[in-house]
Amino acid sequence: MQHISEGIPDKQVIQNAAIRMATYIHQTPVLTSAYLDYKVQGKLFFKCENFQKAGAFKSRGAFNTLLSLSEKDLKAGVATHSSGNHAQALARAASILKTKAYIIMPRTAPKVKIDAVKDYGGIITFCEPTLEARETALQKVVEDNGATFIHPYNDYHIIAGQASCAMELLHQVNHLDYIFCPVGGGGLLSGTALSAKYWSPQTKVIGCEPKGADDAYRSFVTRKFVPSIKPNSIADGLLTSLGSLTFPIILEYVNDILTVNEDEIISAMRLVWERLKIVIEPSAAVPLAVVLSGKIDLKGKHLGIIFSGGNVDLNALPWL
Amino acid sequence: MQHISEGIPDKQVIQNAAIRMATYIHQTPVLTSAYLDYKVQGKLFFKCENFQKAGAFKSRGAFNTLLSLSEKDLKAGVATHSSGNHAQALARAASILKTKAYIIMPRTAPKVKIDAVKDYGGIITFCEPTLEARETALQKVVEDNGATFIHPYNDYHIIAGQASCAMELLHQVNHLDYIFCPVGGGGLLSGTALSAKYWSPQTKVIGCEPKGADDAYRSFVTRKFVPSIKPNSIADGLLTSLGSLTFPIILEYVNDILTVNEDEIISAMRLVWERLKIVIEPSAAVPLAVVLSGKIDLKGKHLGIIFSGGNVDLNALPWL
Repeated sequence: MQHISEGIPDKQVIQNAAIRMATYIHQTPVLTSAYLDYKVQGKLFFKCENFQKAGAFKSRGAFNTLLSLSEKDLKAGVATHSSGNHAQALARAASILKTKAYIIMPRTAPKVKIDAVKDYGGIITFCEPTLEARETALQKVVEDNGATFIHPYNDYHIIAGQASCAMELLHQVNHLDYIFCPVGGGGLLSGTALSAKYWSPQTKVIGCEPKGADDAYRSFVTRKFVPSIKPNSIADGLLTSLGSLTFPIILEYVNDILTVNEDEIISAMRLVWERLKIVIEPSAAVPLAVVLSGKIDLKGKHLGIIFSGGNVDLNALPWL
Repeated sequence: MQHISEGIPDKQVIQNAAIRMATYIHQTPVLTSAYLDYKVQGKLFFKCENFQKAGAFKSRGAFNTLLSLSEKDLKAGVATHSSGNHAQALARAASILKTKAYIIMPRTAPKVKIDAVKDYGGIITFCEPTLEARETALQKVVEDNGATFIHPYNDYHIIAGQASCAMELLHQVNHLDYIFCPVGGGGLLSGTALSAKYWSPQTKVIGCEPKGADDAYRSFVTRKFVPSIKPNSIADGLLTSLGSLTFPIILEYVNDILTVNEDEIISAMRLVWERLKIVIEPSAAVPLAVVLSGKIDLKGKHLGIIFSGGNVDLNALPWL
């Protein structure tokens, strides 16, 4: 059974999501940096989802979706195929809500990701690293256990959960000209665009993507869905295709999507570690890389920048 | 000319230091971690001086001391011999207060440290890497320019500045059973002990030191000054000897000094990067390493832990 979601989340739905999640997730802090303000000649506000529970914004969507399930469905457990932050967030949320999370992972997943899911109590089923094997394994786990499949992004409850991040940011900072947000499957970006529309319609929302995984960019400019085929980027959270629910929201409410290359991502990531003294993952550095690329004139502007997560393998840093 | 300092800072002196520095330094945040609370079975409060200006608590002492100089002396500039955080903090403070900082560094200092001092506008004089060459070079710079020598720790204005860190922490957290603080030259530890005595006399203060640089530990237990000879630790901020002003304060007001080995320091440092998603330097990890060592029964206790700085060479992480 896949989780059935309702229509595009309205203002009230996002507010309710934030309220019911409040005891389970962090209201993450907003940091600033005199050095980066000087460099950009604007005022930068960093929304630190790297400090979120389980190390990424994904905890928002996971909790909101699990809290929307019936008692019976929640009890039967949830399932997903992901080796990244969604899997960790789902495993942690399920464990806190006293149910099971069945996680399908390819045999080839890095040990650090497998360990993280195990640490949070996820029940892992390994499969061959093909789309077909993954789908089959997921279907079996769902059927055998009566578990509910929780998609990483193509679900309005997920979108409403991720939207709470920009809603918070817009309450924490008085006025923003722009919000820069990474885009992979589009859960965070579509939620961010909705929250900007509801709480600060004059704020422009810019999707930020690696050149090596620019399917969202190409989908956006052609206004036709372009799948992500053989993406290649260290921003491992941004390799997936847009979803049938996220893409239309992005088309309607996102102002632009801009891309940056790998060197730009790595150097933005390193700058944050060095200057802000915080750990962000490559995917989280993409929006700052766009800001630093000079593609938009940002002089004197107030910018929200979403640091989406901080889960990094400390043995394999991209600048080494 | 060396900077002349007055007696042991009293409560009012530390408060005044905090007030006059307020526009120049950060009131740093206090972070918590459900994971580390669970691990220690206590409640841990991390005072994040890694987020301090110039990346370490040293900005407190540097500003307080510079702000205590006469207008004439300030104008003539300041000088020190240090290749670490004190040099960076002094260079930055001098630049903001529109004067010069003359920094004596050994020719062998790592490029990353030289660059950092230059970035903050410090005027570097290189010398041979011997104590004699360093003293001679310092004396020459002081005489040639009429600059004031600012000692990294053996100065009551420095001690009062560093003391403002624990004063803040004790205002930010309601009740602490312990404060764990790193000890090198003893500026931060003596200041911390004074602030605990003034604002929370029941709080025990524990100095934390690497086994490979345990001169403070040996000085403390024998109650006789033991110099630091050929120290060997990755905690490069903690290699110096105690000073004639810091040692008596430590003897009188610090409850204990405990040591940890290099593996314990590295693993505490890595744990902080992984779990708290913040960048701390090896010296800053020593107090948490002591807490995790199990040397004191901390069950149910409230602990303040000072993360003293976050200046790390990202190309040379100790676990790689």
